[in-house]
Amino acid sequence: MKATQASKTFASASHIVLPNNTNTLGNLMGGQLLNWLDVVGAISAHRHCRRVVVTASVGKVAFQKAIRLGDIVTIEAKVSRAFTSSMEVVMDVWVEDHMTGARTMHNEAIYTFVAVDQIGRPIEVPALTPETDDEKDRFDAALRRRQLNLIMAGKLKPSEAPELKSLFE
Amino acid sequence: MKATQASKTFASASHIVLPNNTNTLGNLMGGQLLNWLDVVGAISAHRHCRRVVVTASVGKVAFQKAIRLGDIVTIEAKVSRAFTSSMEVVMDVWVEDHMTGARTMHNEAIYTFVAVDQIGRPIEVPALTPETDDEKDRFDAALRRRQLNLIMAGKLKPSEAPELKSLFE
Amino acid sequence: MKATQASKTFASASHIVLPNNTNTLGNLMGGQLLNWLDVVGAISAHRHCRRVVVTASVGKVAFQKAIRLGDIVTIEAKVSRAFTSSMEVVMDVWVEDHMTGARTMHNEAIYTFVAVDQIGRPIEVPALTPETDDEKDRFDAALRRRQLNLIMAGKLKPSEAPELKSLFE
Amino acid sequence: MKATQASKTFASASHIVLPNNTNTLGNLMGGQLLNWLDVVGAISAHRHCRRVVVTASVGKVAFQKAIRLGDIVTIEAKVSRAFTSSMEVVMDVWVEDHMTGARTMHNEAIYTFVAVDQIGRPIEVPALTPETDDEKDRFDAALRRRQLNLIMAGKLKPSEAPELKSLFE
Amino acid sequence: MKATQASKTFASASHIVLPNNTNTLGNLMGGQLLNWLDVVGAISAHRHCRRVVVTASVGKVAFQKAIRLGDIVTIEAKVSRAFTSSMEVVMDVWVEDHMTGARTMHNEAIYTFVAVDQIGRPIEVPALTPETDDEKDRFDAALRRRQLNLIMAGKLKPSEAPELKSLFE
Amino acid sequence: MKATQASKTFASASHIVLPNNTNTLGNLMGGQLLNWLDVVGAISAHRHCRRVVVTASVGKVAFQKAIRLGDIVTIEAKVSRAFTSSMEVVMDVWVEDHMTGARTMHNEAIYTFVAVDQIGRPIEVPALTPETDDEKDRFDAALRRRQLNLIMAGKLKPSEAPELKSLFE
Repeated sequence: MKATQASKTFASASHIVLPNNTNTLGNLMGGQLLNWLDVVGAISAHRHCRRVVVTASVGKVAFQKAIRLGDIVTIEAKVSRAFTSSMEVVMDVWVEDHMTGARTMHNEAIYTFVAVDQIGRPIEVPALTPETDDEKDRFDAALRRRQLNLIMAGKLKPSEAPELKSLFE
Repeated sequence: MKATQASKTFASASHIVLPNNTNTLGNLMGGQLLNWLDVVGAISAHRHCRRVVVTASVGKVAFQKAIRLGDIVTIEAKVSRAFTSSMEVVMDVWVEDHMTGARTMHNEAIYTFVAVDQIGRPIEVPALTPETDDEKDRFDAALRRRQLNLIMAGKLKPSEAPELKSLFE
Repeated sequence: MKATQASKTFASASHIVLPNNTNTLGNLMGGQLLNWLDVVGAISAHRHCRRVVVTASVGKVAFQKAIRLGDIVTIEAKVSRAFTSSMEVVMDVWVEDHMTGARTMHNEAIYTFVAVDQIGRPIEVPALTPETDDEKDRFDAALRRRQLNLIMAGKLKPSEAPELKSLFE
Repeated sequence: MKATQASKTFASASHIVLPNNTNTLGNLMGGQLLNWLDVVGAISAHRHCRRVVVTASVGKVAFQKAIRLGDIVTIEAKVSRAFTSSMEVVMDVWVEDHMTGARTMHNEAIYTFVAVDQIGRPIEVPALTPETDDEKDRFDAALRRRQLNLIMAGKLKPSEAPELKSLFE
Repeated sequence: MKATQASKTFASASHIVLPNNTNTLGNLMGGQLLNWLDVVGAISAHRHCRRVVVTASVGKVAFQKAIRLGDIVTIEAKVSRAFTSSMEVVMDVWVEDHMTGARTMHNEAIYTFVAVDQIGRPIEVPALTPETDDEKDRFDAALRRRQLNLIMAGKLKPSEAPELKSLFE
Repeated sequence: MKATQASKTFASASHIVLPNNTNTLGNLMGGQLLNWLDVVGAISAHRHCRRVVVTASVGKVAFQKAIRLGDIVTIEAKVSRAFTSSMEVVMDVWVEDHMTGARTMHNEAIYTFVAVDQIGRPIEVPALTPETDDEKDRFDAALRRRQLNLIMAGKLKPSEAPELKSLFE
């Protein structure tokens, strides 16, 4: 299987925050943003492997200041690294103020997807080739996150994850 | 008011066709696509004028072959031309087959938006500056479409629309 | 195949504009109205041919003044003319003010539907028989619109569309 | 306040059963139909009193045989009787088979709405004038239903409801 | 088939009233509550019979004072009695004020579900065993409601329903 | 401010997986589950502090085997620990097979909410008092997770988080 360049996995979507998406305070619901992220992330992973993909996990997503009714939310996704049958997707969330047009970075979200066959069994995916510096940083960070998750789940000993060492020294 | 470059008005969104969006045959509903186009078009128009915009009209939208459950629909929008308080937005709809990843152009849609103040009255918008050849072609076509609409609505005589002449000779 | 009377294709639906359907200003989203039109139009076309129908195109839809939260929107549809496998549906949109009950015509929308078999291939539909003066006017206008669309798409020469002549003289 | 003729309160809506509206078996969800009935009933009650109305109660609604994906559901509503600030609305549900076009009566539903002012307090509504035989029958039945509800709620003694007598003798 | 204890059929769900669920006054739509009740009731009936269930009827549901945007609605359901293939489910609706947290009983709703096989035909369900006093009261009331419905539908004579006698004497 | 017992913050909701919630394979969308978790978690946090709460972050959520159309998903939430103005909520997701009724634990999700005043500024919340062993374990783990997050965000040195030591030795 031929490796895919990270840039080929780019996916994005812009949404306007409508009354339909808001909470009691008139701001975007956290759950709605998680849902939008799920779709854009799945498209990015699909562009990497060209197979049906399903969500395997959501990493830490931190919501910053409230996103208001009428604001424009843009999600930009790229696969950061591929493992056997899974792909980590890193997404940036941008917000444009609907009055001033000012654009600010809202947060970063990390989802993992698995490629599956028609009855839902995991299948192998191509490797990912990072090219830019930013892609290379995210490629390295993806491995550290994976190791940390395995440690937290008790499936890996810290001593087996030298990449994490710098964090705890 | 300073003119805006067409490239600054670019907006896009990708969606996966989910069961929620399909008709009796399991294909994307026309009405759902029209709804997605409305949102992306409004974002593009907003990026032109940085004001609240409302849909003024939808031009001809022709649906080609069916878009199937699971396919990825990408809408790419740019303002083609601005008039006093209105902006014509031209959108391309691309479809990626969810099995093969093959990407094909589905159709083109044209919506018009109007910038409004807080109580909904039209307000003036900047002019648009087309730069690429494609942007210039769409800039010219936007005027012909506007004239044709005015003629169809009985508000302009064909003799007053020299740009249309070539069409009917 | 026996021709169907236009009156047999009548379909209608009334909706209340709920928060779920509104934009940033608290007015009905254009995309939501396009979606409602798609459903009522499809029901009208279905009553003409009694087959599964899919949206083929949307003609010009012009939105007039804002429709507000709580207002009642009534869509009334009738097939205006049938071609080989397609049906043009003309729809009137009425709005009732939720405070006063006053009813005003909002706009007219024109959609085209195609009858398809179970694997989505176009199939022939009956002819339409207009009876009232209004039905006859719309029957004639449907042909002119079709010719104009074919001309715009470069599939028909203006000289081959004598019905359009009056428009441009 | 001038009485309103029953015919002036007519409201209707047609829907296509889409995947979005179905249950595990691919049939229309009961809850979705109840929701559609609520909207059409509210429009009918609004046409009677031209005020904001809220749902006060739902009477017995019996679902007959399953309504399938793709079928067309038409709801027809008329106010059957008005009391001080409430209106009983009787609705007929029709189903058209999406393959054959055959139209059958599905069931009858009865909802009660109350007219309210801007802070939600009940306000008086006009009386209803039934004209056809069917309207008169429903006008009489509305009183019997109201008395039966009051008896069931312990707010009326059976001896005070002579209209119900025939039922239990 | 072994009888099921009423306590085993308990099901509940809590929802926050979001803008998406409100009417023109910013209060919960009646139709939305009916929809939520349908889902929780179906889960309760499913827990009784462990088969696919469909909604057979909705009994009287009376809405009390308005439920406001942001309030928390909790529905608690238990099967009250099982008949041949149907199950009556009684549900309590509780509302928590989103500012004070005060919890009040809103109303009671009664839905009936039928267990069906894969092609939608009714199938037999186990009997229900009430244990607490409250469960026993609701078990007895379920029979009276069934008889009253049969009388109203003209399928049972009042003299054949001795349980109802007390009501009308 | 008086501390709240963990048991008082219990919240739960059951949902049936409907076509509306599924992906291309007919299984529950990850994004939909994240959305349901957001609502139940917010209710639990609200029961702790009785104030409006907003989602601050989502911790790791791992999706196990696919949840199928028709299955019943039950989410059970309790606040695990309160910090100055934030509350960590731990949720268990249970799935009941719609054919057999068999109930299995699907996964655990951890969300953090912040209590805010009417203009969205964080406000102080009561402390949480864990009582059962399970509540005490989760109370301790909440602190470790918070420290790990602060370390990952570069806001805390590993040496300042003695509770984490055991993990990395």
